[in-house]
Amino acid sequence: MLALTYDGKKAALRRKYADPQIARGQALVAVHVAGVCKTDLEILKGYMGFTGVLGHEFVGHVVEGPAAWKGKRVVGEINCPCGRCGLCRSGLSNHCPNRTVLGIDRHDGAFAQYLVLPTANLHEVPASLEDDQAVFAEPLAAACQITRQVRVCPRDSVVVLGDGRLGQLAARVLKLKTRKLLLVGRHAAKLEAAEKASIQTATDKDFVPARKADIVVDATGSASGFELAMRTVRPRGTIVLKSTIAAKSGMNLAPLVVDEITVVGSRCGPFGEALKLLATGQVDVTALLSRTLPLDRGLEALEAARSSNAMKVLIEVARP
Amino acid sequence: MLALTYDGKKAALRRKYADPQIARGQALVAVHVAGVCKTDLEILKGYMGFTGVLGHEFVGHVVEGPAAWKGKRVVGEINCPCGRCGLCRSGLSNHCPNRTVLGIDRHDGAFAQYLVLPTANLHEVPASLEDDQAVFAEPLAAACQITRQVRVCPRDSVVVLGDGRLGQLAARVLKLKTRKLLLVGRHAAKLEAAEKASIQTATDKDFVPARKADIVVDATGSASGFELAMRTVRPRGTIVLKSTIAAKSGMNLAPLVVDEITVVGSRCGPFGEALKLLATGQVDVTALLSRTLPLDRGLEALEAARSSNAMKVLIEVARP
Repeated sequence: MLALTYDGKKAALRRKYADPQIARGQALVAVHVAGVCKTDLEILKGYMGFTGVLGHEFVGHVVEGPAAWKGKRVVGEINCPCGRCGLCRSGLSNHCPNRTVLGIDRHDGAFAQYLVLPTANLHEVPASLEDDQAVFAEPLAAACQITRQVRVCPRDSVVVLGDGRLGQLAARVLKLKTRKLLLVGRHAAKLEAAEKASIQTATDKDFVPARKADIVVDATGSASGFELAMRTVRPRGTIVLKSTIAAKSGMNLAPLVVDEITVVGSRCGPFGEALKLLATGQVDVTALLSRTLPLDRGLEALEAARSSNAMKVLIEVARP
Repeated sequence: MLALTYDGKKAALRRKYADPQIARGQALVAVHVAGVCKTDLEILKGYMGFTGVLGHEFVGHVVEGPAAWKGKRVVGEINCPCGRCGLCRSGLSNHCPNRTVLGIDRHDGAFAQYLVLPTANLHEVPASLEDDQAVFAEPLAAACQITRQVRVCPRDSVVVLGDGRLGQLAARVLKLKTRKLLLVGRHAAKLEAAEKASIQTATDKDFVPARKADIVVDATGSASGFELAMRTVRPRGTIVLKSTIAAKSGMNLAPLVVDEITVVGSRCGPFGEALKLLATGQVDVTALLSRTLPLDRGLEALEAARSSNAMKVLIEVARP
């Protein structure tokens, strides 16, 4: 099959990559369209030491597997847990220490004609939802996870730092929960997209942190973002940390103690909720689509996603 | 009066420091005994830019002020809020941005014959409680704050990192909440004191972090402690950060996101609860007393507290 792969040194388009084989409880999915995520770009810099087929955001249909799933249009959760360890048995299978992760950790991904996932990971896509919307299910679920971990009330003032793909989705989800939301970013076109969704925005140059926000979501993916979050949140407030590439350089965490701030690390989220928000139109992602390229121009798609102006870049594999 | 002061360069005993004067709503307290805290030692290195009388842990009796308080034996909360700002009005006066703090921020402290505090800060000491126990009210309240911010259940496995004064008190409070408690430290004598209080201990050399603890309290006061905490806590677990001098050097916060860890900054706590734990004998602090020195040997007391083997060093001012 055709697949966009990474060998630990560089990304490459391979025309004769071996078709994946399913085992019991798994489904073979023919990919329609896949989304490029910042994590894919990090993998190209060595994140997770991953090699294999890239990509973890997708829509497709089941071509092989249990009869109940055959032909169904699906999106899929990316963590493949062992199902046997203590964390799996306690309901935290997303944190299974033995898990593989689609396109991220020892499991071939979605930038290919076919992928394999356990059927337990699959979610059927409502008929009303276009592929180009459903492909946002994975990152939107990650945004929904914020409101699973932190209670957001209508009067809470919430600041989202970062106008990238994840910041945009987080802002759209949080807008459903609070009347006091501000998205802070540095890209005029991206802030404009948020304004069109009735989200109040500020450029990072204009924004003055005042230690007054009840909740701050750091979706910047930078150490400076976390420090800005500490200066933005109020005493006893909450910072939601959304990016795995945050905060490697030296920083002073004393404000967390003095101001008794809570920091909540947040990763993958509920697909069912994400699909519902998309299907009911409560979250509209059309403005977040930058560009769609076919799989055989996959390298170009990675390049396009790297541009600071890019929002979501899609890789079209095969529309049925 | 006699006072142990810091002028921004060095600590000094002053024999003719001006007696403090009370304003409306305040009380003049004659200090009986005061405790040396790690924060005092940090102030001598420049923390908070404080100058004036050192010390914030004390027991004394009211000699001037409202009639209802006169003659009463008291301990006192250290934050003196403005009472008018948004945080004060919302019940978070401990986080008032205009607050002064006894012996820490623009408010003369407890290593002196007299100190002044608002009567709202005072707590009467139960008659059954000796001064040398009651003087632990402030740090014990800070330890109690952990269980105010984080729910601890009997089956939760809790690890306290750091066998210093705060780690010892935290372990004693947490022992009342859970059956699975481990204190990790590096000083044989300190770990022995904990063992005598039926607290299970391990040396940091023997301790192998396994990402299994439900709750980890970082009372080490070092960046390496926070990193050890991230390797000790389970996915979706909680780290309580207790020391303002933690974690200044470079560190990777990605585990917080990947493992969806919650970090809770924790500072001052409930005095009423602390006094009750002391008065009922639920927390016994006698083993934590290292040495008592009179105020005119205050410099020696600071030196004694600096020793890595020291637990609580007391400064005796005037026993009534």
